[in-house]
Amino acid sequence: MTGENQSFKDTGLRGVKVASTRISNVIGDEGKLIYRGYLINDLAKNATFEEVCYLMLHERLPGVRELEDFSSELKRRRGVEDEMIDALKTRPAGSNPMDILQGSIAFLANHHPHPALMTRENELDIGISLIAKMPTLMAAFDRIRNGRDPVSPNSDLGHAANFLYMLTGEVPKREIERIFDICLVLHAEHSFNASTFTARQISSTRAHMFASISGAVGSLSGDLHGGANERVMEMLMEIGSVDAIDDYIRKQFESGGKIMGMGHSVYKTKDPRARILEPMVKDVSELNGDKKWYEIATTLEKKALAAFTEKGKTGIHANVDFYSGALYYQLNIPIDLFTPVFAISRISGWIAHVIEEQFAEAAPKPMLYRPSADYVGEYCGPDECKFVPVEERQATST
Amino acid sequence: MTGENQSFKDTGLRGVKVASTRISNVIGDEGKLIYRGYLINDLAKNATFEEVCYLMLHERLPGVRELEDFSSELKRRRGVEDEMIDALKTRPAGSNPMDILQGSIAFLANHHPHPALMTRENELDIGISLIAKMPTLMAAFDRIRNGRDPVSPNSDLGHAANFLYMLTGEVPKREIERIFDICLVLHAEHSFNASTFTARQISSTRAHMFASISGAVGSLSGDLHGGANERVMEMLMEIGSVDAIDDYIRKQFESGGKIMGMGHSVYKTKDPRARILEPMVKDVSELNGDKKWYEIATTLEKKALAAFTEKGKTGIHANVDFYSGALYYQLNIPIDLFTPVFAISRISGWIAHVIEEQFAEAAPKPMLYRPSADYVGEYCGPDECKFVPVEERQATST
Repeated sequence: MTGENQSFKDTGLRGVKVASTRISNVIGDEGKLIYRGYLINDLAKNATFEEVCYLMLHERLPGVRELEDFSSELKRRRGVEDEMIDALKTRPAGSNPMDILQGSIAFLANHHPHPALMTRENELDIGISLIAKMPTLMAAFDRIRNGRDPVSPNSDLGHAANFLYMLTGEVPKREIERIFDICLVLHAEHSFNASTFTARQISSTRAHMFASISGAVGSLSGDLHGGANERVMEMLMEIGSVDAIDDYIRKQFESGGKIMGMGHSVYKTKDPRARILEPMVKDVSELNGDKKWYEIATTLEKKALAAFTEKGKTGIHANVDFYSGALYYQLNIPIDLFTPVFAISRISGWIAHVIEEQFAEAAPKPMLYRPSADYVGEYCGPDECKFVPVEERQATST
Repeated sequence: MTGENQSFKDTGLRGVKVASTRISNVIGDEGKLIYRGYLINDLAKNATFEEVCYLMLHERLPGVRELEDFSSELKRRRGVEDEMIDALKTRPAGSNPMDILQGSIAFLANHHPHPALMTRENELDIGISLIAKMPTLMAAFDRIRNGRDPVSPNSDLGHAANFLYMLTGEVPKREIERIFDICLVLHAEHSFNASTFTARQISSTRAHMFASISGAVGSLSGDLHGGANERVMEMLMEIGSVDAIDDYIRKQFESGGKIMGMGHSVYKTKDPRARILEPMVKDVSELNGDKKWYEIATTLEKKALAAFTEKGKTGIHANVDFYSGALYYQLNIPIDLFTPVFAISRISGWIAHVIEEQFAEAAPKPMLYRPSADYVGEYCGPDECKFVPVEERQATST
């Protein structure tokens, strides 16, 4: 069977290898995630988000001096143009932050002297700028919609702490800073997930970095992708107490619904990121002196896994979204910023993928993604329809 | 060979059927394009863009009354919110209109009461609104960047004429209106091209219509896709006269370059849209009393085809972008609005595809596009890399 005739109709390209990549590897059966050679567990334990960004963009971990320079560069680029703040001020207070982010990233191209210059150097430069500016845009929008002035970036703070600072105006505690930094490390990259594929696909037309990343933000917003972390928290709030879990699971199973944040298209064991996040939720609960959300989440996970297994559905474990929602909520991040926080991290992977898509040395040269489809529109049988002028068309009830 | 193991690495999914569709069919070998059963030639000759939009969204051509109602609905929706105009006014005059369009469409979601409500009715409603508003946004931006006030939509005019009116403040001649209307008909739909695939791919995550269409605009902006019509006109201007064509072709061939607007990933004969556009370029040239661009374009096409054939490359014919550029230029449309004009038409197909992606009755239910990749990142041999703290990493020259 040749590629030309092979059909993957309606299977969402599952298992179809569309490219080779040096960026990350997801070993679903073993529950392993690897960023450019490094296990996610090692990175979460030891590295900062800045180090992971450097690894994504430069294919190796930085030395002391390199990390200092890279971090300084990110700090230097955090500010956004006054016109960007003016644009945010035109947006209704009820706007969804993901729509704001998607639009703002496209608009950031307006302030770049040569957004469409297709060199690796220029793409890298735009990428660093986007990593630096995304948190600023989101924090500014959150302040503006609440009738407050945006907080300027604070150069004394690292990437993670500065975002929380710009959101609240307060420097976060060290423990909170580290926990949030680990969240950014955990979400940075995940191979050819939907939003990353969108970024690569857009850039394969030779559209510029801003266009590709803006599109990826749109893709991430979907409930089957990044939007899920917001839905998880809404679910935990709907459940409200450990006692209500059995009832909730029963009702979901009866209505054919699913448990948000459970199950993954690649992992058939527990998502390694969920394994790391779970004890972090416990830590934050203890810091806050309220273990309610931790207890609901962990009990729900156990009971849902058992209920799925009883129904013969194995491998439906907690994924990354299951615990990140409960964690961000306890960091006092507004629920509709959970998915933007995902984006603020994943941008590092998206940029690495766009650069790989455009400049990989693989032969044959990567080309525009242009799949086929089966045309099944036999509106007039196997022949073409005969065009009849509007005046002569038979009236049909509207 | 099963789907699970089949690899389409680095072939851009060419020939891989990812879905079944009732929307359009491109028969590359025969140079045929069919929209929902109708040949493009019949539609270009007889139908207006409004009729084609109705066909795209409702799967059949409208009756007299239906067309009247649909056209009125489009007219009623043309206006954009004052806040959208305010947002456009924050943009630098040198901004690329495709970036403006991508950002604006994401921002339009901010003004919808329930952008993420996933019903066919709501998606259709948003779709009609987007078809109506996109020309208004682009014309308004063009006026604003030139220091002029936007021109309000004119309800006496059809979709094609109204766009030209909002751009210039003058009602176009009947012949010009019809020519531009045909251009919109010709660009409305083209199966799983890159931007349409982007729209479907984003919506497969259950992201909303605005997010999907904004992403598609980003994809269309690339030079290997919609951006090509602008590059064609720049090429014709660089050539400047019929006498310079031989030299130009020779230089392009020597530098391994290509001739913009020649060749197509699906058509192996002349693009049927280019066949229809060519005599229209002649008509406009005659209306304008200057056949220069028509002569350069037709001569270039003939000579380039011959030169490709001589090199053994057959089937490199003019595609839709080859003649549309020369046509829009003679309609006094600014060059950087050529690709937005493409988008103003293609949106009708994008919306049909998003609705098909989300609501097609095909089984199994369409799912998120999530392909695989070959991980080739053996940074530390076949094993994972050992994490070394930053202080202990060997210095590497930056």
